[in-house]
Amino acid sequence: MSDDGINWVLVNASPDILVQIRATPALQPARAVRDTGIAAVLLMDAQIDHVTGLLMLRERGTPLPLYATAEVLADLSQALPLTRVLGHYCGVEPHTLAIDGQPFSIAPLRDTTFLPVPLSSKAPPYSSHRNDPHPGDNIGLMLHDSASGARVFYAPGLGQMTDAVEAAMRQADVLLVDGTCWSDDEMITLGLSKKTAHMMGHLPQSGPGGMIEVLARMPARRKILIHINNSNPILREDSPERTELATHGIEVAFDGMDITL
Amino acid sequence: MSDDGINWVLVNASPDILVQIRATPALQPARAVRDTGIAAVLLMDAQIDHVTGLLMLRERGTPLPLYATAEVLADLSQALPLTRVLGHYCGVEPHTLAIDGQPFSIAPLRDTTFLPVPLSSKAPPYSSHRNDPHPGDNIGLMLHDSASGARVFYAPGLGQMTDAVEAAMRQADVLLVDGTCWSDDEMITLGLSKKTAHMMGHLPQSGPGGMIEVLARMPARRKILIHINNSNPILREDSPERTELATHGIEVAFDGMDITL
Repeated sequence: MSDDGINWVLVNASPDILVQIRATPALQPARAVRDTGIAAVLLMDAQIDHVTGLLMLRERGTPLPLYATAEVLADLSQALPLTRVLGHYCGVEPHTLAIDGQPFSIAPLRDTTFLPVPLSSKAPPYSSHRNDPHPGDNIGLMLHDSASGARVFYAPGLGQMTDAVEAAMRQADVLLVDGTCWSDDEMITLGLSKKTAHMMGHLPQSGPGGMIEVLARMPARRKILIHINNSNPILREDSPERTELATHGIEVAFDGMDITL
Repeated sequence: MSDDGINWVLVNASPDILVQIRATPALQPARAVRDTGIAAVLLMDAQIDHVTGLLMLRERGTPLPLYATAEVLADLSQALPLTRVLGHYCGVEPHTLAIDGQPFSIAPLRDTTFLPVPLSSKAPPYSSHRNDPHPGDNIGLMLHDSASGARVFYAPGLGQMTDAVEAAMRQADVLLVDGTCWSDDEMITLGLSKKTAHMMGHLPQSGPGGMIEVLARMPARRKILIHINNSNPILREDSPERTELATHGIEVAFDGMDITL
């Protein structure tokens, strides 16, 4: 996210962050050698696919501003201690996100406020909270752009709807939400896992109470699925499932997707 | 490395391993969903750029055979506990490499033996051995292919020559060795670090006692620099430094380089 197209806040640090930076000229302001436009990183949870890229940002010259809940920062200093490891390279400047309903801002983004919304999902398999869920293990994020007035709700993990999530989603102009699995038993049917989507902390798209039903009652002008598992048939543009999404006005995110509010 | 082109031993797990697998059809035998041809991983040290990719191999169905010295396995269970984290996914089947001069083999490679050679280099910045070097923090590897009789010496980190390294390099038909820096003060001159190549555990190419001088006395039929830092001018094909390497018969490795013994 960026106000000015130069300084960016990265949400979740994917393992392929270096590939993403190379593919995204806007993230290469080249003000110095080894410069990137990443001014800060904000984490939704401590899942491996959302945090491993932090190790790839270690060559910066100053501590990396890192925004996450106390629960996520604890996982990243203990079970998978990336913040301690980064202490031997650039270092981390941690900012603990409170989940008390107060919005916060991240320098240098002047026009954006962020509101964490606790989610019912799952802590990572390696976390001590895996079978002992705490509020703050997973958050969604409500973004408010004061320049345009637009609101975005972002949630790559979303295990079940709650009143708070329902309320946040109803306010959003743009929804970027969990698209992991089409059906609850998808991973089992394909022999990839013994777990349902729900057991992994994800709301499947199809079926009663699924994401398609949830999105149908939302007034957002854009409804976009993100965080799509490679088992999900919606990745195939000619699939009936993709067609079904289209009839509901639901988009499927792609690498390099750019959203202007 | 592979004997049969189907089962491979991966040496060091780079953070971009998924990109490498996608770019390398030989690593995609597709015997099952989410299959790769990676039968085992062998680590030279515990540097972040050599181990982070282990996290990306976590979706396999069976424990990952992992070959490394006791010192490297200790770093990966403590300071950067990737093996412990992987225990919550596929798990790891650790094989401790002794550095007592005995060769070992790795199933299913039948024609290859491996001999670890302790190197004078550096443990990673995050390691408790960073300022207290132990034999086994870094190894080079002598490979012997019994089918062709050829020997390869591989060492992405190599801080200074020792009698053991000199002897191994003299026996090798192919050398794949540390190409990190052209000059000892390269990182300082470019403002990227306050450390010389030697301080980081790497032998620069140029200058007295440098890698060009070392390689000049070796009978190997191919001399290839690997592990090249993005500050190194040899990455530019039209640089005078690259021309100087060519006059010494020294090659520069590239992504996707394939070597048949």
